[in-house]
Amino acid sequence: MNTGTLYLIPTPLGGDRLEAILPADTLVLARRLTYFIVEAPKTARAHLKLFGTAHELRSLSMQELNEHTKSDDLEGLLAPLFAGNDVGLMSEAGCPGVADPGANLVRLAHARGIRVAPLVGPSSILLALMASGASGQQFRFNGYLPAQDPARSEAIRRLEADSHKLKQAEIFIETPYRNPALFATLLASARPSTLLTLACDITLPSEFIRSQTIAQWKKTAPPDINKRPTVFVLFAS
Amino acid sequence: MNTGTLYLIPTPLGGDRLEAILPADTLVLARRLTYFIVEAPKTARAHLKLFGTAHELRSLSMQELNEHTKSDDLEGLLAPLFAGNDVGLMSEAGCPGVADPGANLVRLAHARGIRVAPLVGPSSILLALMASGASGQQFRFNGYLPAQDPARSEAIRRLEADSHKLKQAEIFIETPYRNPALFATLLASARPSTLLTLACDITLPSEFIRSQTIAQWKKTAPPDINKRPTVFVLFAS
Repeated sequence: MNTGTLYLIPTPLGGDRLEAILPADTLVLARRLTYFIVEAPKTARAHLKLFGTAHELRSLSMQELNEHTKSDDLEGLLAPLFAGNDVGLMSEAGCPGVADPGANLVRLAHARGIRVAPLVGPSSILLALMASGASGQQFRFNGYLPAQDPARSEAIRRLEADSHKLKQAEIFIETPYRNPALFATLLASARPSTLLTLACDITLPSEFIRSQTIAQWKKTAPPDINKRPTVFVLFAS
Repeated sequence: MNTGTLYLIPTPLGGDRLEAILPADTLVLARRLTYFIVEAPKTARAHLKLFGTAHELRSLSMQELNEHTKSDDLEGLLAPLFAGNDVGLMSEAGCPGVADPGANLVRLAHARGIRVAPLVGPSSILLALMASGASGQQFRFNGYLPAQDPARSEAIRRLEADSHKLKQAEIFIETPYRNPALFATLLASARPSTLLTLACDITLPSEFIRSQTIAQWKKTAPPDINKRPTVFVLFAS
């Protein structure tokens, strides 16, 4: 018997207009599958309901993979694939396998000879980078910066120095309720000429994207980014 | 009069099955627009024909933006937007504004108060990263490595050291006819335990993605990557 394929299925970034975010093939596939590996079953079922799954929600197999999953348990998650079933890997939002626990499973799947197929969908990191105007030949995603000063200011100055030296866009995120604090530290720590992009509520009707220098941000009314998912892009030319 | 919106429209990575790569909204918008800024008009017209544009191809306005465009000429490209028209920015393949000349135009559009709207579509960089299993909390896209040794070997060892130190996936590309030479240098320069992903012909029927250690690649038949677009991902754990 052939092993199944591990499909990497992107999910919405908070919106519900599937036409804006998923190609038809991604939807057709997600509707057909009955085996899933997900960060949280509740969110995953809501996504599959939105996608219009062809199956009863309660009949779907939902294995969990999140920050609590032990590496010894990864092998067991692959069982449906060895039994010949295709499996969909989904994260809470956006593209699975990027800066999430799914990456470890993808690595193991390769090691076990399982085919891995990434599907097209929304990535807030990539969409923010496209819209920033900051991408030269290099860019880096840094995940979360330290939440407290002085570590946060130091991280910003280090990223700014790297960006300047390598002509590299630096991308990072924060827990949404801390966005205003990160923004304040950016204004206080980065050079006036550095470009800062805020990309907020990407793909939603409330999408807000602005890219301007720190000096210009200081002259602008503070952006409304509290508790709204925001990707930050910094570029020091 | 209101200024238009600059839409960032992704294009196919060489395939022609639009269902696999573009959400309905991206297609609807691309069919409607009549003003475009593109790397090469010939490829852009082929893409728009494939998309099913609502207009005569010869009636479309196609302004060029590529590596030959002078920065003084960027302002002029925005004229249709100031006249109230929406404009589509497209690159030769994949997502515009990422490691291409479009980024400079996007930056200028922000400076002039023009709304920038990124649309969902295929990015070979992101799809390769998803499928690599290499993405921890950080990743970096490095563009092209030096084409000649010893600079190429040195670049690989530097990326490997950074990957190990920062737990960062390192992504890079090469001109397709040089892929076998880059692969040979990777086998000769990187440590046996380092993970190397080759993601070739992404989104095409011939898609080939494999992720394994350098030691395993040395025991495998050489991959068929000559003259095929390939994204390389390296991760030293």
